[in-house]
Amino acid sequence: MTNFADISSRLAEQEIEVPSWAYGNSGTRFKVFGSPGTPRTVEEKIADAAAVHRFTGLAPRVALHIPWDEVDDYAALRRYAEDQGIGLGTINSNTFQDDDYKLGALTHTDAKIRQKAIDHHFACIDVMDATGSRDLKIWLAEGSNYPGQADIRGRQDRLAESLATIYERLSDEQRLVLEYKFFEPAFYHTDVPDWGTAYTQVAALGDNALVCLDTGHHAPGTNIEFIVAQLLRLGKLGSFDFNSRFYADDDLIVGAADPYQLFRILFEVIRGGGYGTDGDTAFMLDQCHNIEKKIPGQIRSVLNVQEMTARALLVDTAALTAAQEEGDVLLANEIFMDAFYTDVRTDLAAWREERGLPGNPMQAYLASGYQEQIEAERVGGTQAGWS
Amino acid sequence: MTNFADISSRLAEQEIEVPSWAYGNSGTRFKVFGSPGTPRTVEEKIADAAAVHRFTGLAPRVALHIPWDEVDDYAALRRYAEDQGIGLGTINSNTFQDDDYKLGALTHTDAKIRQKAIDHHFACIDVMDATGSRDLKIWLAEGSNYPGQADIRGRQDRLAESLATIYERLSDEQRLVLEYKFFEPAFYHTDVPDWGTAYTQVAALGDNALVCLDTGHHAPGTNIEFIVAQLLRLGKLGSFDFNSRFYADDDLIVGAADPYQLFRILFEVIRGGGYGTDGDTAFMLDQCHNIEKKIPGQIRSVLNVQEMTARALLVDTAALTAAQEEGDVLLANEIFMDAFYTDVRTDLAAWREERGLPGNPMQAYLASGYQEQIEAERVGGTQAGWS
Amino acid sequence: MTNFADISSRLAEQEIEVPSWAYGNSGTRFKVFGSPGTPRTVEEKIADAAAVHRFTGLAPRVALHIPWDEVDDYAALRRYAEDQGIGLGTINSNTFQDDDYKLGALTHTDAKIRQKAIDHHFACIDVMDATGSRDLKIWLAEGSNYPGQADIRGRQDRLAESLATIYERLSDEQRLVLEYKFFEPAFYHTDVPDWGTAYTQVAALGDNALVCLDTGHHAPGTNIEFIVAQLLRLGKLGSFDFNSRFYADDDLIVGAADPYQLFRILFEVIRGGGYGTDGDTAFMLDQCHNIEKKIPGQIRSVLNVQEMTARALLVDTAALTAAQEEGDVLLANEIFMDAFYTDVRTDLAAWREERGLPGNPMQAYLASGYQEQIEAERVGGTQAGWS
Amino acid sequence: MTNFADISSRLAEQEIEVPSWAYGNSGTRFKVFGSPGTPRTVEEKIADAAAVHRFTGLAPRVALHIPWDEVDDYAALRRYAEDQGIGLGTINSNTFQDDDYKLGALTHTDAKIRQKAIDHHFACIDVMDATGSRDLKIWLAEGSNYPGQADIRGRQDRLAESLATIYERLSDEQRLVLEYKFFEPAFYHTDVPDWGTAYTQVAALGDNALVCLDTGHHAPGTNIEFIVAQLLRLGKLGSFDFNSRFYADDDLIVGAADPYQLFRILFEVIRGGGYGTDGDTAFMLDQCHNIEKKIPGQIRSVLNVQEMTARALLVDTAALTAAQEEGDVLLANEIFMDAFYTDVRTDLAAWREERGLPGNPMQAYLASGYQEQIEAERVGGTQAGWS
Repeated sequence: MTNFADISSRLAEQEIEVPSWAYGNSGTRFKVFGSPGTPRTVEEKIADAAAVHRFTGLAPRVALHIPWDEVDDYAALRRYAEDQGIGLGTINSNTFQDDDYKLGALTHTDAKIRQKAIDHHFACIDVMDATGSRDLKIWLAEGSNYPGQADIRGRQDRLAESLATIYERLSDEQRLVLEYKFFEPAFYHTDVPDWGTAYTQVAALGDNALVCLDTGHHAPGTNIEFIVAQLLRLGKLGSFDFNSRFYADDDLIVGAADPYQLFRILFEVIRGGGYGTDGDTAFMLDQCHNIEKKIPGQIRSVLNVQEMTARALLVDTAALTAAQEEGDVLLANEIFMDAFYTDVRTDLAAWREERGLPGNPMQAYLASGYQEQIEAERVGGTQAGWS
Repeated sequence: MTNFADISSRLAEQEIEVPSWAYGNSGTRFKVFGSPGTPRTVEEKIADAAAVHRFTGLAPRVALHIPWDEVDDYAALRRYAEDQGIGLGTINSNTFQDDDYKLGALTHTDAKIRQKAIDHHFACIDVMDATGSRDLKIWLAEGSNYPGQADIRGRQDRLAESLATIYERLSDEQRLVLEYKFFEPAFYHTDVPDWGTAYTQVAALGDNALVCLDTGHHAPGTNIEFIVAQLLRLGKLGSFDFNSRFYADDDLIVGAADPYQLFRILFEVIRGGGYGTDGDTAFMLDQCHNIEKKIPGQIRSVLNVQEMTARALLVDTAALTAAQEEGDVLLANEIFMDAFYTDVRTDLAAWREERGLPGNPMQAYLASGYQEQIEAERVGGTQAGWS
Repeated sequence: MTNFADISSRLAEQEIEVPSWAYGNSGTRFKVFGSPGTPRTVEEKIADAAAVHRFTGLAPRVALHIPWDEVDDYAALRRYAEDQGIGLGTINSNTFQDDDYKLGALTHTDAKIRQKAIDHHFACIDVMDATGSRDLKIWLAEGSNYPGQADIRGRQDRLAESLATIYERLSDEQRLVLEYKFFEPAFYHTDVPDWGTAYTQVAALGDNALVCLDTGHHAPGTNIEFIVAQLLRLGKLGSFDFNSRFYADDDLIVGAADPYQLFRILFEVIRGGGYGTDGDTAFMLDQCHNIEKKIPGQIRSVLNVQEMTARALLVDTAALTAAQEEGDVLLANEIFMDAFYTDVRTDLAAWREERGLPGNPMQAYLASGYQEQIEAERVGGTQAGWS
Repeated sequence: MTNFADISSRLAEQEIEVPSWAYGNSGTRFKVFGSPGTPRTVEEKIADAAAVHRFTGLAPRVALHIPWDEVDDYAALRRYAEDQGIGLGTINSNTFQDDDYKLGALTHTDAKIRQKAIDHHFACIDVMDATGSRDLKIWLAEGSNYPGQADIRGRQDRLAESLATIYERLSDEQRLVLEYKFFEPAFYHTDVPDWGTAYTQVAALGDNALVCLDTGHHAPGTNIEFIVAQLLRLGKLGSFDFNSRFYADDDLIVGAADPYQLFRILFEVIRGGGYGTDGDTAFMLDQCHNIEKKIPGQIRSVLNVQEMTARALLVDTAALTAAQEEGDVLLANEIFMDAFYTDVRTDLAAWREERGLPGNPMQAYLASGYQEQIEAERVGGTQAGWS
């Protein structure tokens, strides 16, 4: 069995990017509940993200969403973030909230609407130039609701063309990361529904085009760690959008629904060279805190990723490989589960304290007064949400 | 094979209740797209529902949703509807959009919040008294998002108590209809997730408490017609919320995703004595026209139900029973599918014309100028939606 | 946080029934792989079951399946088992392998075939009388493959009648336990597909008719712990068939696919009064060791149930209830997960040793020579399987 | 609306390959029911396949499965088939029934077992040379049942290497077709679980390596017609294994579960250039007639494909494209469904009679005496099945 001491330095490689929108309000089509202390501005979102990093040491970057986080001066925003102790991360485009995009954006039959959507991505690349962000993440809400409504294949061809135009605009240091999603908001077909589609689309673009795997965007029963292994094997796993789900794209706190699945995913990331300094796979969160407090929700999320990473690093891979090669099904499974069953919380608390972090980040946050402060100060204005 | 002439009179028994909210805007958590001509008031919703009935002869009642359709004078509203040629139907309660209900309503741990939710249902019963509605339909958006968040079993007990209090308030002519839903907006557990829960809850109440089956509220792969047969056998199928889905609760036009499933459902309704004058099962729609035009969307919906009802009535049940009893699997299936494969559209057009209705209701609507008129007239104000 | 010492005595209440068929060969429709040491007789199966109990102290009874375990003298078989240190448990009937049952057994349209199936259950009750078994477990493989093939509702009525006839034959100390299953071997409809159907069928019979919940027999995404809570609330959770699954009825080792789900299920059992001396819910396994060694597979299974029971017993229910009542979503979830994340293996090893059991039952079994012995001795004859 | 006359010649292009194993017995892991008249030899299977073609004109080839259809002289077998009026089609390999393959074949950690599996494929290619078959179809039953049991990624690499070795052995006229499957018989991970994996594996081999799409091998809710469109777009849709399902890989008669889905699939095949003389996509059946008669089951299957092909050919694609480009969601859907709702059975009967075929192939078969004859003659011997 691998010891915690052996994995200590590898844990230090972990960086998780938090989404600015996790600090704003979110909900379902039925209701968005507000909550006291919710940010009204991008700066307040960044301040909250910085708080998460301050207490956990795990979240050095915050991802932005355009236009939700649109500002006049991105260089100033970057400095603001750096002053708070974090950086700006991935830029997320949005082609699903403009009336023109009701029936499609990058795939629309109308060339003018496609160009509008492409131009929006150009604007996002301009933002990236100003913020120093590496990744442009594209999630397409496109698809159709009724059979016959759209030419599925024609849309695929137009998508390829639109993506190529966007990709050409990127600098050599920038990457395009394409997210797939099984369904929602489209209910019959989705233009990028699965990893196969995302892969074939980005493979046609070039080396700096990669796939984003959102853990909630699969059909029921899908073996997600297999896809992780496959995309790493193909050199195309650009990033994760971590969250968890019981049913659809529930966007719950990562690790909350099935911690063992998260462990298995992280094991394959490590095994496949996607973890830490080994690789270039970005770890991001994409979650909705519909009913729970948002900053504690984010703290819990990054801690869950860290705890399951620790357990995955603890797998005795030499013994595992030996058992696998001998065909000892039960022993191999036991070695694997031994690591999962190991309670790493005490060791992690010590590890944090060695690094000047609070041993229990959640307690430290709750005791810090930050939550009370923002609830008292952030009065008036419009709470941030998905618009 | 049964002939169309044989089923003509049975088709005349069909009545479908349309939901007022189908005429307002709806969408996903990502975006609600508006559309020209959308009603601003309850009266405009009723006018649109009346138009659907005028062109199809199938939709003599419109269901209301409180508080979305709240007015000062329900008797006046009823007269307005009758002047338009339709009646007011089921009253739907809403305990999912008030901030107090974030963590529950009829199941909440706080007795004051439970009472508030009960009082809302009492108010709905007052509306029913004024509108002459028979059914109080309760869909509970309640549940939890995280394991441990709630005491699943305690909530079930509180639900039973709250429902009993509401049920007592009903008159002998009124019914309580409890809807179940697999998930959404709650993502870990739903307080009434399946027909078994709805059934055991209403069975504890009394004869006038029944189950509402929404065709989109099941786990993937669920055999819905089995549940229809079972609830009719148990005397507890109060009503349908018809719609269709490919994935989750997509709320697409009924029959759009799997017309053969709709046919099978309607066959079991007829076989089980739930159709027309045989029974008391209400046929309602519950749909969202997120991207398509709303009135045509509703026309298509009621026509789909009618077409599949006609096909289901055409099943040669004597021959089917004989094949079933002989154990001739392929012959029984063939007899069943023969009815499904029969194109009833020409016969239905003639049937409508005999009754003074347009043979092609959709064409008649599109040619009528109604759509252009409402698009021109309904300018300004706030388009109706889910609030 | 509850301490291990606090739960020590409650752990001693745990009894798990193992299935005789887990020691024989099993497989898929594609292939049944044999393995050395597989029992050829019921006695050898019982000997293997006794070995599991000897090393774990958890499995004091073995369930039989008729006719797979048919013998001339059940009283002698019972003595044989008792000599080995275990008892005979639930009797499982089989109405799915006789040619007459191709299209149904208790639901068949032909009264003679129904009577044959009823008579088989009478024979099982005779076995129960001889073995002293309390429970008759009925899993019906019945249903249909094609729409129209069968009269779904008529079958439900015939099922009720057949079950009533069987139920009447039971003594007051005996119970009928009805299992439900979503699908397989029938692929269109199953006569007892869900807990609602099993519940309404047994509720019509009487107090000694109960539901068996097989953890692998649900639609994708089903919240199984909710059903556990509901059936306990209704007083109808007779027994569990434990196993685990990723896709369908995979019949994998319990806890292997989603240990957190097993934890949640066990928490609801305990909370609902179904655990140990509190209740009458039987804990059984129903699994297939298609590729792994069978006795170690069973040892792993009962240990998994024990480990998750320990974690579930560790939940600080007072603190949990307080957090739930305050509506502190994250704290309630954290208290719940704290117990799940607690590594109980060291404490359990000590607990076992205190009771004269090996601290590590798996290692003790592997070191005992039993496996080598049966592999050497059980040569020739026909290995037991599903026939 | 397109007329039937317009599609008459295109219907004549249809050729469906039937599987030899559909004529033998099949079942579930619980039971294989036998039936009178079941073939005992390959020749009898071919005779039955020829009967299907004689009555329908749709099934000019029969696929073989090695070793189930192993004979000494394949050239003689080919002549036998030709004498019966049909040809020999795809050769299916089998690496899931030998004890050596319990934990893998082309992916096994042991190079000797991999070589054995490769050699089996070489033997299949030898059969192809003798039979003149174009396609080698590889379905891999490989995977694992427990997390940790296998190195998912290492297996993927070994699979690539094994497939490359097999592919090299093919002549320029031969093709390798790789089938994917979501799960079963492996229950945790499958080595080729999805189209993305099959695609990336065959793309690495070369132009004559293609994907086989079995309509039953997907996760719940998967939009299969999207995958059809995508694989045709990528030039990699080698063949179909048609069947239908409600739950898992049920292998029911194609079109029996969701005829509208079959229609949508066929529409995309036609739209994407995969139909008839336009393309090289082979239409095959892969089904199990567990409870229904086998030859009538096959006749129903090929007729279902023909009926849905006719409906798909009837789509007014010019009007559809216009509606799609105008963004008229409801009109586009209506045009699409109009074709699906058209009852083509009378026209198809006339079309068949023009070609010297029986207007109603099922009735003609049942009246022909063939079934009675084989039931009388095929007495004794061992009925063919999956071994």
